[in-house]
Amino acid sequence: MALALSLGRRGQGNAWPNPAVGCVVVRDGRIVGRGWTAPGGRPHAEPQALAQAGRLAQGATAYVTLEPCAHHGQTPPCTDALIDAGVARVVVALEDNDPRVAGKGLALLRAAGIDVNTGVLAERAAQDLAGFRLVRGQGRPWLTLKLANSFDGRIATATGESQWITGPQARRAVHAMRMTHDAVMVGAGTARADDPSLTVRDIGAARQPVRVVVSRRLDLPLSSKLARTAREVPVWLCHGPDPDGPLADAWDGIGAKRLPCAVIGGQLDPGSVLSELATAGLTRVFCEGGGALAASLLAAGLVDELVGFSAGVVIGAEGRPAVGVMGVARLAEAPRFKLVETRALGGDVLHRWWRTPA
Amino acid sequence: MALALSLGRRGQGNAWPNPAVGCVVVRDGRIVGRGWTAPGGRPHAEPQALAQAGRLAQGATAYVTLEPCAHHGQTPPCTDALIDAGVARVVVALEDNDPRVAGKGLALLRAAGIDVNTGVLAERAAQDLAGFRLVRGQGRPWLTLKLANSFDGRIATATGESQWITGPQARRAVHAMRMTHDAVMVGAGTARADDPSLTVRDIGAARQPVRVVVSRRLDLPLSSKLARTAREVPVWLCHGPDPDGPLADAWDGIGAKRLPCAVIGGQLDPGSVLSELATAGLTRVFCEGGGALAASLLAAGLVDELVGFSAGVVIGAEGRPAVGVMGVARLAEAPRFKLVETRALGGDVLHRWWRTPA
Repeated sequence: MALALSLGRRGQGNAWPNPAVGCVVVRDGRIVGRGWTAPGGRPHAEPQALAQAGRLAQGATAYVTLEPCAHHGQTPPCTDALIDAGVARVVVALEDNDPRVAGKGLALLRAAGIDVNTGVLAERAAQDLAGFRLVRGQGRPWLTLKLANSFDGRIATATGESQWITGPQARRAVHAMRMTHDAVMVGAGTARADDPSLTVRDIGAARQPVRVVVSRRLDLPLSSKLARTAREVPVWLCHGPDPDGPLADAWDGIGAKRLPCAVIGGQLDPGSVLSELATAGLTRVFCEGGGALAASLLAAGLVDELVGFSAGVVIGAEGRPAVGVMGVARLAEAPRFKLVETRALGGDVLHRWWRTPA
Repeated sequence: MALALSLGRRGQGNAWPNPAVGCVVVRDGRIVGRGWTAPGGRPHAEPQALAQAGRLAQGATAYVTLEPCAHHGQTPPCTDALIDAGVARVVVALEDNDPRVAGKGLALLRAAGIDVNTGVLAERAAQDLAGFRLVRGQGRPWLTLKLANSFDGRIATATGESQWITGPQARRAVHAMRMTHDAVMVGAGTARADDPSLTVRDIGAARQPVRVVVSRRLDLPLSSKLARTAREVPVWLCHGPDPDGPLADAWDGIGAKRLPCAVIGGQLDPGSVLSELATAGLTRVFCEGGGALAASLLAAGLVDELVGFSAGVVIGAEGRPAVGVMGVARLAEAPRFKLVETRALGGDVLHRWWRTPA
């Protein structure tokens, strides 16, 4: 199952809107088939692993990280594939959390006389598949918020200079993290100030994540790198309900996708932004700031993972803060996270944190 | 020599104004004497180790972390002790960097027919003895700046709430760090806001570090914990050249020591503060903020070690910054540090950095 999970993770960032599932077929103690959700979500992991196994699948055990699907969608159901291949036993890490699906796949397998076990490495599977499960359960994707800042929590000097605070190894790690997410997201201020391309570079990415910009007024330069490359790598714009007509037409014209979102107190509602992104199919979103967007996501309790890169440089209080104004009056109200990893990365410190269950 | 160095470190925080030296006497492959600078700086490491060795010192090898003293001060010179004990060989990690002393001790030993080697583990010794060497070489102590802050570099909410951002293990580590320094230093704002006691607690400290408050106007409440305990644990006040007379008398009356320092641009000159502390005998100072004092020390390039504790809580930009305004316009001007250690400590991240040589 550990192998199936690691195969499943290969699909992270590529499998959306489907879950990134892994499958291993074992016959007489030998691995005879391996599969993971293909780019774009099809084919699923199970038919690929079964195809590899061929006739050896008969009487074999299939390890699958998520309950096999039982419905006819754009692919035939994986339960049928498992039954037709004649596997004797199916071991599942995690049941599907969609109430319309949960348990149906397992029931079909059992009805066909297959021995079914569940709950193996379920916690790790739940972590790997958290994005898909959040979409199903709460209608929003997993959100990783990454902030690369100085020792004192600044992302730029007062004059806006931000290149480079962290070193090349940290920047490379950011590209690797982008690749395991379906989309990279920034606020309008960052898009205007840094003119980023937000692509995955220098590590042989097969598929680029969607590039999402959160901009209430849609007031981003059409001369930006994002606009100029919108036909090659998707650009999605989350904006308010009343965008400027010609501006909207211009972005439509260059191939960007627009997602109108709700506004709360003059600001885009971060909950609505994430809900629109989930509806559009995203399961894992990697937000890279800036300070205002980071603050609104944190204040709304929508950050699942916090990734910090801290550099050994001190900029001082006049520098731009990594996290903007959050409206936290008392320490007890401030969002808390649990440390999951810290290590040196080049000359910087990487630290990762997960949301503390409320 | 590694053992001698680790013995020497036992004196850190206790030996000032003397260096925290370690000494090991070895005869026929057996350790026959161990010593380190006693609290208050006397007796030195060598005579203690030699006394332990007794007659076994004859023909033995003495490992000493710093060149033995050759002058008659408040103790007889250690060179005499080594010669009188009849040791055959002396191995020294580091020569003294005081031009009035350097090499004299070694020359005296050699003149007495003792075999002398130097430079063994010199780099580590230079690190351990950096405070003493800075006092001798630059007239200022080693300065460690510790900042315990939220993920986003805040030390308190907008309303001043700061207890507790980091967890109990981080706080315990801070007490252990205080103990390896001669003094703990804070700015006046922190002393007023937090009313700290700045003592080492719960880890069996034999000797408390001096408590230093940097306050230009000497305007600290006489009802504070520091003032009320000034007779038990030393309180030193670094203030401007023209303190209020009755205020100065009051602090003198409760046993505090006052150190008048120079003012630059309306602020206490951090260089003058450190120079006064060195003159008063301190070799290692542990500064715990607040933001204004931290910023002035960093901007003046006076921070040798930076210790960060980062907690998994996010406070937002309206919180109080760990480092105040520094006047850094360009990133190239910002002080840079080299990562020496990072690890998880309870639920927090500890990261230590050293000054990058200019």
